[in-house]
Amino acid sequence: MTTPFYAPPDAFDGDRVRLPDDETRHASRVLRHAVGDVVAVVDGVGGWHTVRLDRVAKDRAEGVVVETRYDAGEPASRVIVGLAPLKSADRMAFAVEKAVELGVTDLLLLDTARTEGRIPKPERLHALAVAAMKQTLRSRLVRFHPVRQLGMAQFLADTGETFLPVLLHEAAPDDAPFPTLLAQRGRSVVPLVGPEGGFTPEEVDAARAAGWPVASLGPRRLRAETAFVAVCALHLAARISDAGAA
Amino acid sequence: MTTPFYAPPDAFDGDRVRLPDDETRHASRVLRHAVGDVVAVVDGVGGWHTVRLDRVAKDRAEGVVVETRYDAGEPASRVIVGLAPLKSADRMAFAVEKAVELGVTDLLLLDTARTEGRIPKPERLHALAVAAMKQTLRSRLVRFHPVRQLGMAQFLADTGETFLPVLLHEAAPDDAPFPTLLAQRGRSVVPLVGPEGGFTPEEVDAARAAGWPVASLGPRRLRAETAFVAVCALHLAARISDAGAA
Repeated sequence: MTTPFYAPPDAFDGDRVRLPDDETRHASRVLRHAVGDVVAVVDGVGGWHTVRLDRVAKDRAEGVVVETRYDAGEPASRVIVGLAPLKSADRMAFAVEKAVELGVTDLLLLDTARTEGRIPKPERLHALAVAAMKQTLRSRLVRFHPVRQLGMAQFLADTGETFLPVLLHEAAPDDAPFPTLLAQRGRSVVPLVGPEGGFTPEEVDAARAAGWPVASLGPRRLRAETAFVAVCALHLAARISDAGAA
Repeated sequence: MTTPFYAPPDAFDGDRVRLPDDETRHASRVLRHAVGDVVAVVDGVGGWHTVRLDRVAKDRAEGVVVETRYDAGEPASRVIVGLAPLKSADRMAFAVEKAVELGVTDLLLLDTARTEGRIPKPERLHALAVAAMKQTLRSRLVRFHPVRQLGMAQFLADTGETFLPVLLHEAAPDDAPFPTLLAQRGRSVVPLVGPEGGFTPEEVDAARAAGWPVASLGPRRLRAETAFVAVCALHLAARISDAGAA
């Protein structure tokens, strides 16, 4: 399967689409596409379009949409995971890519007491989302939501669906392990991975008071990025085990 | 919990241990330990030793073992995962660290038709294993096993236990998804993650002929390193769900 181009919805007009400037340069100079070539174009909102190019120049590449599939590579429902921005910009870009590969639709950027990284600028987040969507053959851009702990409850309530945030943290003996919670609650689970220094006791208490479980992934010390990729993978596996798109 | 030092078994004599040179420098100059300090020392073969230092100099650090716990952070049985060495040495180091974080005991380094990376030198692998063991608060060094496909069957048979290799690959409609296989076969599963270019049709046919399932992780294109971390995390979750150490 070929890596698609990306063109936002406003690049489409009826059955025609014009590629953005950067994609135009890539199509004409790097890939050396020609009139008549058939390419894939995703629009970031679920459309995977098969397009026959009828004009290819270094400043203009356009074509006709021959066929459209919807939600290629997309899960059947929202998949929400939270992560406190990592201190290293490279590791943050890596984490975003992993989340998109593993089918996450919404990434909560957690503002916690010990968060070390800054939330990347919107342009940077958008670029990461576009690149990851194309690389992983998806058709929807992952959405980013900066939230603080109280704000998260409101955000999740506003979705109109029932979600259960779960803090990934050193658990108490009575806490169910994270895989067990997933098995019980399925895709409604929203795993929250704290910063490198972990959640504070006050943040854990606030979560428990709100009815949010605390769960761990075993006895070893995990880097935040490892816990993050692990919970994304476990959430994916839980969805694969159910019926429907993963 | 504090990051332990590493001293191999031959550094121990009765109830005394002498730290290796690099650990000695770290203890004396960086951490500025003093006589009377209590530190943790792992021996790479399961021992987590609490040690009271009774000599600390830039060329000699030693102490008395006060207490020893066994298999701290270790899973209850062998956890074997295979990976074709990645082209980038950094990404390979990253993958080793993730495997150790997620409780892998044995890492098969797969020599496949499309393997791009070289197997790191033994000294490099040892250094990676030591660093990861300390970072993750484990007490056993992960073991590396370069294998080719036929050699793998012999390696697994030699363990005396029953393992089922599973190729991570684009699956046929009748193939069970990887999480389903894990649920059915548990910790006997040995996930095999191919190189960036994937397994060849001949390698897949040979696996099927040997009775090894082929399974995927969903409809998106995954980088080899992502599939690798994902299967390590899923294997861990399957062990957490069972009784016993994860």
